Amino acid sequence: MKILVINPNLTQAVTDAVAAVARKYAAPGTEILAVTGEFGPQVIGGRAENAIAHHGVLDLAARYYAGCDAVVLGVSLDTGLLALRELLPIPVVGMTEAGLFGAALVATKIGVLTFGARMVPAYEELVKSHGFADRVAGVDSVELPPTATFSDPQAVRRLSLEACARLIDGRGAEAIVMAGAAMAGLNETLQNEVAVPLVDGVACAVPLAEMLVRLGLPKPTAGSFAHPGERSVRGLSPQLAALFRAKP
Amino acid sequence: MKILVINPNLTQAVTDAVAAVARKYAAPGTEILAVTGEFGPQVIGGRAENAIAHHGVLDLAARYYAGCDAVVLGVSLDTGLLALRELLPIPVVGMTEAGLFGAALVATKIGVLTFGARMVPAYEELVKSHGFADRVAGVDSVELPPTATFSDPQAVRRLSLEACARLIDGRGAEAIVMAGAAMAGLNETLQNEVAVPLVDGVACAVPLAEMLVRLGLPKPTAGSFAHPGERSVRGLSPQLAALFRAKP
Amino acid sequence: MKILVINPNLTQAVTDAVAAVARKYAAPGTEILAVTGEFGPQVIGGRAENAIAHHGVLDLAARYYAGCDAVVLGVSLDTGLLALRELLPIPVVGMTEAGLFGAALVATKIGVLTFGARMVPAYEELVKSHGFADRVAGVDSVELPPTATFSDPQAVRRLSLEACARLIDGRGAEAIVMAGAAMAGLNETLQNEVAVPLVDGVACAVPLAEMLVRLGLPKPTAGSFAHPGERSVRGLSPQLAALFRAKP
Amino acid sequence: MKILVINPNLTQAVTDAVAAVARKYAAPGTEILAVTGEFGPQVIGGRAENAIAHHGVLDLAARYYAGCDAVVLGVSLDTGLLALRELLPIPVVGMTEAGLFGAALVATKIGVLTFGARMVPAYEELVKSHGFADRVAGVDSVELPPTATFSDPQAVRRLSLEACARLIDGRGAEAIVMAGAAMAGLNETLQNEVAVPLVDGVACAVPLAEMLVRLGLPKPTAGSFAHPGERSVRGLSPQLAALFRAKP
Amino acid sequence: MKILVINPNLTQAVTDAVAAVARKYAAPGTEILAVTGEFGPQVIGGRAENAIAHHGVLDLAARYYAGCDAVVLGVSLDTGLLALRELLPIPVVGMTEAGLFGAALVATKIGVLTFGARMVPAYEELVKSHGFADRVAGVDSVELPPTATFSDPQAVRRLSLEACARLIDGRGAEAIVMAGAAMAGLNETLQNEVAVPLVDGVACAVPLAEMLVRLGLPKPTAGSFAHPGERSVRGLSPQLAALFRAKP
Amino acid sequence: MKILVINPNLTQAVTDAVAAVARKYAAPGTEILAVTGEFGPQVIGGRAENAIAHHGVLDLAARYYAGCDAVVLGVSLDTGLLALRELLPIPVVGMTEAGLFGAALVATKIGVLTFGARMVPAYEELVKSHGFADRVAGVDSVELPPTATFSDPQAVRRLSLEACARLIDGRGAEAIVMAGAAMAGLNETLQNEVAVPLVDGVACAVPLAEMLVRLGLPKPTAGSFAHPGERSVRGLSPQLAALFRAKP
Repeated sequence: MKILVINPNLTQAVTDAVAAVARKYAAPGTEILAVTGEFGPQVIGGRAENAIAHHGVLDLAARYYAGCDAVVLGVSLDTGLLALRELLPIPVVGMTEAGLFGAALVATKIGVLTFGARMVPAYEELVKSHGFADRVAGVDSVELPPTATFSDPQAVRRLSLEACARLIDGRGAEAIVMAGAAMAGLNETLQNEVAVPLVDGVACAVPLAEMLVRLGLPKPTAGSFAHPGERSVRGLSPQLAALFRAKP
Repeated sequence: MKILVINPNLTQAVTDAVAAVARKYAAPGTEILAVTGEFGPQVIGGRAENAIAHHGVLDLAARYYAGCDAVVLGVSLDTGLLALRELLPIPVVGMTEAGLFGAALVATKIGVLTFGARMVPAYEELVKSHGFADRVAGVDSVELPPTATFSDPQAVRRLSLEACARLIDGRGAEAIVMAGAAMAGLNETLQNEVAVPLVDGVACAVPLAEMLVRLGLPKPTAGSFAHPGERSVRGLSPQLAALFRAKP
Repeated sequence: MKILVINPNLTQAVTDAVAAVARKYAAPGTEILAVTGEFGPQVIGGRAENAIAHHGVLDLAARYYAGCDAVVLGVSLDTGLLALRELLPIPVVGMTEAGLFGAALVATKIGVLTFGARMVPAYEELVKSHGFADRVAGVDSVELPPTATFSDPQAVRRLSLEACARLIDGRGAEAIVMAGAAMAGLNETLQNEVAVPLVDGVACAVPLAEMLVRLGLPKPTAGSFAHPGERSVRGLSPQLAALFRAKP
Repeated sequence: MKILVINPNLTQAVTDAVAAVARKYAAPGTEILAVTGEFGPQVIGGRAENAIAHHGVLDLAARYYAGCDAVVLGVSLDTGLLALRELLPIPVVGMTEAGLFGAALVATKIGVLTFGARMVPAYEELVKSHGFADRVAGVDSVELPPTATFSDPQAVRRLSLEACARLIDGRGAEAIVMAGAAMAGLNETLQNEVAVPLVDGVACAVPLAEMLVRLGLPKPTAGSFAHPGERSVRGLSPQLAALFRAKP
Repeated sequence: MKILVINPNLTQAVTDAVAAVARKYAAPGTEILAVTGEFGPQVIGGRAENAIAHHGVLDLAARYYAGCDAVVLGVSLDTGLLALRELLPIPVVGMTEAGLFGAALVATKIGVLTFGARMVPAYEELVKSHGFADRVAGVDSVELPPTATFSDPQAVRRLSLEACARLIDGRGAEAIVMAGAAMAGLNETLQNEVAVPLVDGVACAVPLAEMLVRLGLPKPTAGSFAHPGERSVRGLSPQLAALFRAKP
Repeated sequence: MKILVINPNLTQAVTDAVAAVARKYAAPGTEILAVTGEFGPQVIGGRAENAIAHHGVLDLAARYYAGCDAVVLGVSLDTGLLALRELLPIPVVGMTEAGLFGAALVATKIGVLTFGARMVPAYEELVKSHGFADRVAGVDSVELPPTATFSDPQAVRRLSLEACARLIDGRGAEAIVMAGAAMAGLNETLQNEVAVPLVDGVACAVPLAEMLVRLGLPKPTAGSFAHPGERSVRGLSPQLAALFRAKP
């Protein structure tokens, strides 16, 4: 089995971190192909950068999905998730969606931890758009840029532990999803000091993608996730344009 | 006052229809500048096309907002709304958001009418993302492509009246928002035969944008709608890239 | 255009403050007629006073709406809003409803600020009745009576800034609605010291009323906002009784 | 024990019907004092009439509560309920609130049946304001005026059975609340032909009021249901005005 | 009238406390039969113990309901409530359900107080399952085991007052339900020092059960609360097995 | 890896059907141990039978979990799920929970199909208790007993297709979860005639359990899913009693 992991950011180090987690939690025999964005934001740090990354996600998927059995989004706002689910003939799993489902299998009330207070509303909106607000006790943040994962790991560690304590003691979280592609693997280094499970989105997304491949569910032929049929588009990469010419 | 109306689709006829409504409901002295997409979908007919249009909306805004006092989105999925609200120094109003608020000022339970059953879930999700699910009695659709507005107006008219009846009698709608840029102005031709108000999104969005200009609310300096500050991006149009270099 | 602004309280100073804001944000050529209650509470400070003011609002509307194009409620619990919307042939806009919609056009999560902790539940219930609970991050209060606006403006200012800080830092509010007719105009004196937009309900309600007049939506002929038809009433003012004899 | 039953409508026949049910379900030794409105609507048939009845309810309560142990609202929109709960030193129970709680003790999903499609939204809003939307499967109506109870009981019976069938088969209701003061006692004549319990609001409200008297819960001294303290009011009946001078 | 009060725990002291409250608030002439569990947990202190108690509740009901007019659950997680409501021919009321309804008749926002932080999520889930989340401001806990009621009443008292203060000041609770069978009667000793009503679940459940008996609602013959008909079971007590052979 | 599949019903044919699906979708090397209930209902057909099965599920888990890496509940009401998640040191996955998550990875709005209209409310309540009501478009049923799967497969097939059509056309379902242990494998025989994916709960639960084993998340040491510690119980099987003596 071959899973395409898409990081629409331009930061190869994030892709590498995500790919390492993906490979660690993949089943024996699953191959991971991880690709990095070619236009758009270096790192998604706000709403506008995320909006642009929608295009980037679709473009990367179009370029690389051939020969793959499933796609995992290595971007923690699950950017473009429903769009890809409509457009591609193979299953697509978002990393935060996956982390939420993973956490939901071990706890009722879930906390979400991300980088930067300005992103908290965006994750709250993401949780709602997934219809999961009832399970999420709160979203909290580490006041550092995602790049601090690489440049100042001790600060990330310290502030993450403080945020976990706020989510557990103040909000009643009984499991915590690490929502940030740059956080890939961070849960492992913190787990010993936190009383509830820390869940990595990519670590869940890969087995979930494998599950979908195993289930072999058909592409719907009706509804909003059926292929849209032949559509007229302009100014897109040939590979992305081709997806709109595909037979439904 | 000058308002930029953005249609990220490539269809000039839709832009023209939207612009005509915008000019009709603008206050005396308000100038409307309506622009059409330059890449992406001819008409947004699904989730993937809408995802790509996020980029298109931001690109058009970046190219044309200078000298304008506010932006109105002439795309009925309010594509890129929150992203533009973060990025631009001027107010931004979505047409369906505006139609919902307009309808909410005359009725408690609102119906939404659009083109194509496959788009119904997307509008239901939009309504939820606006936090307005509690006010929306239902979303229904006319089983025709948006282009039928121009090619087969009688069929659009007939099926729209049937859908209005379903929303009123079956769902309890007491006002109906016409959600489709291509539907601009359709409400006027149907209103005489419908017992509840029909609300055009663009007709509401322009006065709402004028209201925001009059209010003169400051751009927030904190939170998720503050400008993101200087950000590193690549492969975008110079005008769009420039917005990420703007002083916050 | 002529807009009737109704303050069902007996306090002329509140009416004057509301009228000043209404005039400031009205379009050129819009005339404001502001009227004050003739029976009921001096100032609405609780549920019972608000209940009585329902009658007062309808009575004032009946006495003064002739010749007006729209009504704005200058009472921050939007007292009698849906009743007037049913009974009158012209549009009606509530000031807190308007403030919420205005805030919703610049932010996703909204805070609400009012006078007196005992009124907080009533505003929470109002927000829910408007179907807007999903957008409101919290309601907070200044522990002073509304009359302090006139008698101790410095205390109002200081406590308002503290409450704004609680709403922004503690609740994540990205815009704040000033909910209190006596607060009319307060936002302007505080705005420089608050990082997110402060929204005045009356300042929004007047342009929204103008928008509805411009839209020219028909009075519904079916549903709960159609005129109730000829009804038998007793013991009401002749003007109010007359509204129940109006042809539907 | 003595319970005051308030019908703010002007129709004595409704008061009589309500009082008969109240007496039937009262405990031995409970006295029922039923009073009828002196101003306002003959029958509440819309939002405006209900708004005016808020004043009527408070006025009747002020005139007659002395010597009573509790109040039951014999008006199916629970008009003025929270206001009275704040203002009076004795417990207050609304008839539809009571019917919902009664039904909730025998079923999870509840149907609500009332007179007139135009009142359906008002009851939906009432259910929401009681925080009970999650338990209510739907509101349906008999297309007759409330007075048909007395003038055409056979039609009321036939249409009520049809509406019950729609609520049970179409909405999944497992108990049905009869929401209409004029419907008092109707449940008994229909029950034999309906597969789920039919619940009369007044029949529940009286025992609930008795329960509250037995519990002897103190009047709160803080929050929105504490007495508002001495308040300045004008133009009210002496008895109602006196309630605003009462020592808290 | 005779009411069966079921405590599925094995602790007779809890049954005695519950029975004393039941008798105190029962109407004259109502007999209380209180029974204690014979297998399962000594005290329910977690999810697994509560799961087992479902069986215990049904078994006790089957053994003792003959000759009774109604059942009250003297277990604060309302364990087995809906199951008994389906299986028995007589009304069944849960003590926390009853406390919530009682509190809802005197306040809009309700606090819930229980023993042990680990039980807080279970009560939050119970409130949701009752469809009452919209009315509940928060659940808080006393960090003592339920048995402390008997062994260290002063600590229970002190910590309960602190928790009440958190619910009132921090969450806006305007009435508080004491959720714990071992808390039976505790409200009376605390009430003088708390500004809002404290509501005992059993004190409400008994009058509610009496109300249901008085209403005489029929057992439904359709839906999920109709008797399931003759069912095949094995390994149950003869009395419980007999309930599955009863004619529907 | 070894997964314990628990069917608390007494029907071996259901266990066999569930085990066959479990084995089919298990990864190579995963062993399935499927066990059948020893007391309680032959088939769960109502609320009371489900309540009793809570005990059965815990008892089976206690008897057979030793040596297993995870538990899958082969009972479609996810009976005892949270209780086992608290009590056992290994992961536990419910089959309907799993089906909902599987469906949620391929569609936004999910339909649920079960046996018997009387069970529909129970599944609606289950969906809510999982916090997933926002994703579920509706629950529909086949009016046959679960045993018809074996005795009249053609009728099951025909009625299932009709119910699928109602869910898709009437409710907008874009994927459908087959909720019934006796339905195990039914999706495969229907899929060719249904336009949206049909999801089998057990087929999802096994890979999800494998995922949790692979993730190796720690048992929480705080909160409602930590082991309850040493507890006093009586009258349980020695194996179940032993779980309450386990070191936390």
